[in-house]
Amino acid sequence: MTDDTGVFALTRRTHEKRVLAALRARGASSRAQLSEATRLSRTTLSDIVTDLVARGAIVVTDTDAEQRRGSGRPAALLALDPGSAQFLGFDFGHRRVVIAIADASHKVVAQGEAEYDEHRDWRERAAIAVDLAQTMSAEHRLHFGAVQGVAAGVTGRSRKTAEPIVARELANAYGIDVVVDNNVRFAGLAEASERGSRFSTALYLHLSDGVGGAVVVDGRLHQGADRFAGEFGHVVVDPDGARCRCGKRGCLETISRLGALEGALPAELDAVAREVGRVLGAASMILNPDLIVIGGRVPTEHPGLLARIEEAVHEGTAGTAGSRPEVRAAICGPFAGARGSLIAAIHESPLLAGYAGTVFETGQPPSTRKATG
Amino acid sequence: MTDDTGVFALTRRTHEKRVLAALRARGASSRAQLSEATRLSRTTLSDIVTDLVARGAIVVTDTDAEQRRGSGRPAALLALDPGSAQFLGFDFGHRRVVIAIADASHKVVAQGEAEYDEHRDWRERAAIAVDLAQTMSAEHRLHFGAVQGVAAGVTGRSRKTAEPIVARELANAYGIDVVVDNNVRFAGLAEASERGSRFSTALYLHLSDGVGGAVVVDGRLHQGADRFAGEFGHVVVDPDGARCRCGKRGCLETISRLGALEGALPAELDAVAREVGRVLGAASMILNPDLIVIGGRVPTEHPGLLARIEEAVHEGTAGTAGSRPEVRAAICGPFAGARGSLIAAIHESPLLAGYAGTVFETGQPPSTRKATG
Repeated sequence: MTDDTGVFALTRRTHEKRVLAALRARGASSRAQLSEATRLSRTTLSDIVTDLVARGAIVVTDTDAEQRRGSGRPAALLALDPGSAQFLGFDFGHRRVVIAIADASHKVVAQGEAEYDEHRDWRERAAIAVDLAQTMSAEHRLHFGAVQGVAAGVTGRSRKTAEPIVARELANAYGIDVVVDNNVRFAGLAEASERGSRFSTALYLHLSDGVGGAVVVDGRLHQGADRFAGEFGHVVVDPDGARCRCGKRGCLETISRLGALEGALPAELDAVAREVGRVLGAASMILNPDLIVIGGRVPTEHPGLLARIEEAVHEGTAGTAGSRPEVRAAICGPFAGARGSLIAAIHESPLLAGYAGTVFETGQPPSTRKATG
Repeated sequence: MTDDTGVFALTRRTHEKRVLAALRARGASSRAQLSEATRLSRTTLSDIVTDLVARGAIVVTDTDAEQRRGSGRPAALLALDPGSAQFLGFDFGHRRVVIAIADASHKVVAQGEAEYDEHRDWRERAAIAVDLAQTMSAEHRLHFGAVQGVAAGVTGRSRKTAEPIVARELANAYGIDVVVDNNVRFAGLAEASERGSRFSTALYLHLSDGVGGAVVVDGRLHQGADRFAGEFGHVVVDPDGARCRCGKRGCLETISRLGALEGALPAELDAVAREVGRVLGAASMILNPDLIVIGGRVPTEHPGLLARIEEAVHEGTAGTAGSRPEVRAAICGPFAGARGSLIAAIHESPLLAGYAGTVFETGQPPSTRKATG
């Protein structure tokens, strides 16, 4: 791809985004109205509209004959196709898959989940997910004829096995390249995005059966050299500590995962909060974040922990010229992973890749469907 | 600025970069030759050339009358103006200022340094720097009529005081906005850039009289919320440790700065290397870097330290799916800060800001001048 193509594609995306935003704000509109609303020339607009119609993102709904005063041929009205599923985000957990689907304007138009047995292999899980999406599409009258981006989160522990299988199965189903990553990283992306664009650098720490996380800079996941950034759980906090499943000793996960806190006394919880806060404090000196989000089942089941973690973070970042990061509880709930996948699908779609202006608009999910597989 | 302006400016920069690269590769060239070399239309090329000549970046050197076969009016030959200083990078240390100057093609055309008394205030230091640049310009026959970007690094400890003064004094001298930052962060930017673009994420740790660092992602400094990212020196490694100048206890700086290592026994050095490696190992789990560079006077004066730090980093990153980061000694020497400033000046110049394609080409500095102030 030459520089010119890049610049051309960027211009095109910018224009296209204006057209989609105008259609979302105005509803069905004639070409003349769109040209006025977007300040694009009729010729440019015509190119964009032709392409969007061809891709199934927008439809010709009607003509303006009824509202029309004066003479002349009635003009066609264009509208976002409410039935066009353009972006799909999957979150494959140990025992269930969650799916979020968005239209051309990045609005979530359907969310659903299906449970599966944890012994199901990844090909089976992918098939269950594709079936669920099919069921959701029937229920919400969606079609997958114009899918622009698909991403899927998988559990960190099985990422190396799961990635190629899930990528292949979903690519076969939707005829498009699929982005696959750790679902905790995607959850972090959703949590940071949900807080809005005023935060430049966000850390996400997920304390659950396992411990993981993500680093989000300017609304995008920091990837690192091998897309393994965010592994807060395997920072060593005690070189003489218990053996971790990763092989090292004294990883943060060994002391702060859900199982390790069962029946812990208040003083023990305090000590764990201090260690968690020290790791986040160290990360804060290195990354100068303005937001730290703590998610997962640990803060839900031990609600006092968050304040003590925050205290330890502030101890670790005292006396420095940078401002203190805000420490907050996660708010995206069980749909965090799927929503983060959706954001990644939007970021990575060939049409929008590298386009920092893309904003994820959550809207209100119309309904949630449960299925079992 | 509208989206169109942004896209237009990007196209313009891309074209301009092609013209400058062609002039650098070919030497003096006619418009026809440049059009062929850059595959730009004569009209587009003419606009670019007119602008570059007006800004003093390129000059009309001669005509092709001598080489020319056939008839017709001789064509003007264009060349990079070797006398045009386009980008200036300053590094203000405790006792000296270092300056690097680059031409339009980002090649370093002059480097110099001047010493000053450490009690000089920041206005005086800036004046000494401007004088040095003036002397360098006379010696290298440079003119400052077309300066596109200026950046200056200042010592971390005095950053809040120094930043506004240095920014104002240099802005007055060169008639352009000036980027000011911590000189250790700029040194890290230079060290990471010098290693080439194959590294996606680099950590820089500076162990000297003080301890600092930088995080460089895809060739750019990670800034953080308040531009205070990279403060490895103030990560707490021992909450019961010695009081640090920042007010906290047991910061990495308290044990690993040059002064703390004076007369240390081998076993003590080992312990320090282990702590340094643990902090870098933790940072590696969070950021998944492919490169870690260690600079400053400590590794120079204690040459065995690097291997022991590397060992500890690898212990902290064992058992993970990501690859190990390379741990390397700094190579930019005393010009690291000024070269990093120069890279920042190039990145931040209004013409090039946000343009990831900008590559810093060090070339061979023609000479180094020492002055005392």
